[in-house]
Amino acid sequence: MGLFTKDIKTMNDLFVHQLQDIYYAEKQLVKALPKMAEKATEKQLKQGFLSHLDETKTHVQRLEEVFRMHGTEAKAVNCPAIDGIIQEADEVEGEVEDKAVLDAALINAAQAAEHYEITRYGSLIAWARQLGRDDCAGVLQKTLGEEKAADKKLTKLAESKVNLRAAS
Amino acid sequence: MGLFTKDIKTMNDLFVHQLQDIYYAEKQLVKALPKMAEKATEKQLKQGFLSHLDETKTHVQRLEEVFRMHGTEAKAVNCPAIDGIIQEADEVEGEVEDKAVLDAALINAAQAAEHYEITRYGSLIAWARQLGRDDCAGVLQKTLGEEKAADKKLTKLAESKVNLRAAS
Repeated sequence: MGLFTKDIKTMNDLFVHQLQDIYYAEKQLVKALPKMAEKATEKQLKQGFLSHLDETKTHVQRLEEVFRMHGTEAKAVNCPAIDGIIQEADEVEGEVEDKAVLDAALINAAQAAEHYEITRYGSLIAWARQLGRDDCAGVLQKTLGEEKAADKKLTKLAESKVNLRAAS
Repeated sequence: MGLFTKDIKTMNDLFVHQLQDIYYAEKQLVKALPKMAEKATEKQLKQGFLSHLDETKTHVQRLEEVFRMHGTEAKAVNCPAIDGIIQEADEVEGEVEDKAVLDAALINAAQAAEHYEITRYGSLIAWARQLGRDDCAGVLQKTLGEEKAADKKLTKLAESKVNLRAAS
């Protein structure tokens, strides 16, 4: 971004900037998810993180597809929001002694990342439609559906099993 | 937090830590919302930020009530996630030249904060119930309802008005 100029002049510029932001975020999550899977004790949670890792790799590819469709180079810009979410997760997880409580903290951390993505993909889809790019919106919608499903799965696992064990 | 000890030993410790985290986040939003209202051009958006500021002040008080009910001192701990979300909002908003596009960026920024709060209150409520603190869960539930309503209002305003102007 320019130091002295304002680089976002149109809705299209904002759309591309947000694509670059979520592209960075998805790539950071590809790095974070295996570590979360390693820390998790509950078998279903560990497995859930690993299968969401596969989905996340597909999300990166879908973003590259949208960049291509839009005729823009696939580029990542720094995203302080996802960095903050991951930093906070690392800090809290480092403070937790009990393995069952750690599983609850891991779900909490993962859901913060999911919700960040849900809100960003929501905006991107609305903006794509407004810009007449229903084709891009369609690709992004597939990812949004998967992020929402991942979030729901985590809630279910927390409420049916993980929180119960953590509180006992 | 301890440098050499792990301070979160139980689910109750995790609950209190998360209360302290969201307490910090709500207080940061009390500072951020007037600036967002100032930057907004669309009248309904400006007004929306100001009325959410009032709600946010109530959310701070409700958290103090939950701390009291729980017999714990109301204390804030750093929350890198909300700091990252606010920093990212500032950076993007500083790059936007056009006022209508800026309104779209402001909604996007506010929704990232809303979703962060929605996920954190969701965990807090589930944990409170698991800990047998339905009284705390009830207070937190009021705030969660308002955060969800604020998020929906922003989506409606974006789709009915702001994105349309930004793309024209």
